[in-house]
Amino acid sequence: MDFLKSVTSKKALEMILSLPYIPKTDIAGVEDALNRVLAEDVISPEDIPPFSRSLVDGFAVIAKDTHGAKETNPRFVYLKGEIKIGENADFAIEDGECVRVSTGSMLPEGADSVVMQEYTRNLLDVIEITKVVHYGENICFRGDDFKKGDRILGAGKRLNYFDLGILSSIGKSNVLVFRKPTIGIVSTGDEIVAIDGVPGSGQIRDINRYTLGGLFRKEGFQVIHAGIARDDVKEISEKIVLLKDKVDIILISGGSSKGEKDYIIDSIETLGGNVLFHGINIKPGKPTIFASLWGKPLFGLPGHPGSCIMVAIRFVLPLLKNMEGEKDQTLKASISGVLTMNIPSNIGVEECVDVVIEKKDEGIFITPAFAKSSVISAFTKSSGFVVIPDEKEGYEKGEEVEVYFF
Amino acid sequence: MDFLKSVTSKKALEMILSLPYIPKTDIAGVEDALNRVLAEDVISPEDIPPFSRSLVDGFAVIAKDTHGAKETNPRFVYLKGEIKIGENADFAIEDGECVRVSTGSMLPEGADSVVMQEYTRNLLDVIEITKVVHYGENICFRGDDFKKGDRILGAGKRLNYFDLGILSSIGKSNVLVFRKPTIGIVSTGDEIVAIDGVPGSGQIRDINRYTLGGLFRKEGFQVIHAGIARDDVKEISEKIVLLKDKVDIILISGGSSKGEKDYIIDSIETLGGNVLFHGINIKPGKPTIFASLWGKPLFGLPGHPGSCIMVAIRFVLPLLKNMEGEKDQTLKASISGVLTMNIPSNIGVEECVDVVIEKKDEGIFITPAFAKSSVISAFTKSSGFVVIPDEKEGYEKGEEVEVYFF
Repeated sequence: MDFLKSVTSKKALEMILSLPYIPKTDIAGVEDALNRVLAEDVISPEDIPPFSRSLVDGFAVIAKDTHGAKETNPRFVYLKGEIKIGENADFAIEDGECVRVSTGSMLPEGADSVVMQEYTRNLLDVIEITKVVHYGENICFRGDDFKKGDRILGAGKRLNYFDLGILSSIGKSNVLVFRKPTIGIVSTGDEIVAIDGVPGSGQIRDINRYTLGGLFRKEGFQVIHAGIARDDVKEISEKIVLLKDKVDIILISGGSSKGEKDYIIDSIETLGGNVLFHGINIKPGKPTIFASLWGKPLFGLPGHPGSCIMVAIRFVLPLLKNMEGEKDQTLKASISGVLTMNIPSNIGVEECVDVVIEKKDEGIFITPAFAKSSVISAFTKSSGFVVIPDEKEGYEKGEEVEVYFF
Repeated sequence: MDFLKSVTSKKALEMILSLPYIPKTDIAGVEDALNRVLAEDVISPEDIPPFSRSLVDGFAVIAKDTHGAKETNPRFVYLKGEIKIGENADFAIEDGECVRVSTGSMLPEGADSVVMQEYTRNLLDVIEITKVVHYGENICFRGDDFKKGDRILGAGKRLNYFDLGILSSIGKSNVLVFRKPTIGIVSTGDEIVAIDGVPGSGQIRDINRYTLGGLFRKEGFQVIHAGIARDDVKEISEKIVLLKDKVDIILISGGSSKGEKDYIIDSIETLGGNVLFHGINIKPGKPTIFASLWGKPLFGLPGHPGSCIMVAIRFVLPLLKNMEGEKDQTLKASISGVLTMNIPSNIGVEECVDVVIEKKDEGIFITPAFAKSSVISAFTKSSGFVVIPDEKEGYEKGEEVEVYFF
């Protein structure tokens, strides 16, 4: 096909990610901040934990008082009192003394370790210790988590559930996060009817709206659908204009292959946009358009459901995460396994093949599904995909390959 | 510790998953059905695609008419007309004929393959073909996705974005799905104050509410928080009662270790519940309680944030997915790598260690973080965890281990 502005996969991603975009910010309550990207550095206003705590039920001691202690040769310490959970430790211990503590109790001044209850015997005011403890044992020291003034989370970090715990530990109930971009989708094609429509002869229902919508909603993005446009510049342009003030990125599914490309390209140019590339040397997904319109990124995605979703996963999602202000994009979950059959591939084209992953006692086995990109059924049986770089002529049966999860 | 009803990790999971529960169902629109579990078998009412389609722009032909065709020795076929996208193919082709088609066009009766446009030359009403095609090439046949009457998705399947595409392809805009269980959380402990509270000496803020909430919301579950209860049977029981008619599963964080266990156990028993086990031979997370109350599962989770979340990931999440009616729980994303240091472990205890994963040119390297379970900061730097089975005395530096992602 004679794509005028065709690029490699690497170049495409480079161009996509270099599009300038300044994310807006929101204030989010900590419970709503999951999977949002921090727009501020979070500094600890105090030591966390704010006091040294026991990690077990037992007796807070000075470690050296337990040296040499065994079942047959216990050491004795004087029981000075008890500090219950949530109570202030308003006394100190000295050599030869101990205090009864519970898991989570504040430690008394002077204590540097805790003997677990099962290694003690209680003789009225005296405690027999039957096992040595070392300095710091069974203790979480003041500031073990963070010191006052530490930068505990940095701008650009996507917040996971541990991060929510960290924010709550310092009492930060609201955080500044980047706004998630809103995505607008236009489905195009004379052959496309809505899900509740009755396809005429030669027509099919809109699939990409739902696969794309699912992919993006899964990541927490808001998706707006402008409807289905016929293969007509005026109709496509009108649908795009509908999205102008509502979305941060526009996706047009269908109509990007050569026979139809003029509709999308003409629509973009009619509206004053600038086509940055047309065609990526990948399979599936070659007839992809990337443009800038009203300062917003715009993709023309292939109409075949399999091609459409693969381009969305590999090129649109990274852009969305970039637009969200994410600095270090998280490691994409992947698994390695042994190929059960050859995957042929053409040099000069980066190919993606969806695969089935099987875990057996002997290891992990990867079988290509070789779904036609027009067929959606094979994908639901696949767990992920293998990427064959453009300089490779495929992988051979028995080779170890890396699979990225859908 | 003398846990009265302590069990192995395997036995715990067995008991947890065998608790009887009949999930309710909902009707969901296809766009809201992502990550929901199907409660019905979905049968295709028609062949999908409903007609044979071209996968490329070019000329629909009878494959044998192209045999022997090359650049230097083209074959000729007569151009009978054009079928545009979305149009009905209301004529047939016979030997020596072809029809111009676009990607997605319906094929005329008689055609069994499509020659791509770039391997043709147009001589008025005659098309020169310069490359052989084989039967089925560049075609998606009627019914390639599904045949009428095929069970295309089965009850118990969690719907991913491909499945939404499948549902839309057959025009199924509403599906019967299982209701997601609602989770109630009670935080307990005299030392715990709310996120916007000012901890007194010996007190800390509630962390588990947010880490647990994040974990469950990430999976699309609704979470209700009943507030913080002091270490007091009456207060804990009151909070549990608040959740009675609102939730399907109750989690109590904190207060499950030996020094405090009586509060939780007594509360459960006072309310008429039945403690099924107390203590799992795992680290972290040993002081875990599992009970049945009002026919609902109830967990007493350890108070340490690291222990609490690990038990929730490994024991509560599988139960939730079971309660959702999921039949084949999806392969948990994991990665294998080489340990950069030893991980010691005790025989008889299944240990979980959170780890940092590094991808380098030479491979994937796994470094244990050895976070104290009381410290939340280390977890945010970790990507996942390694499980050391109870019969193993740890893993050695250089061994290949499997890491499960958080």
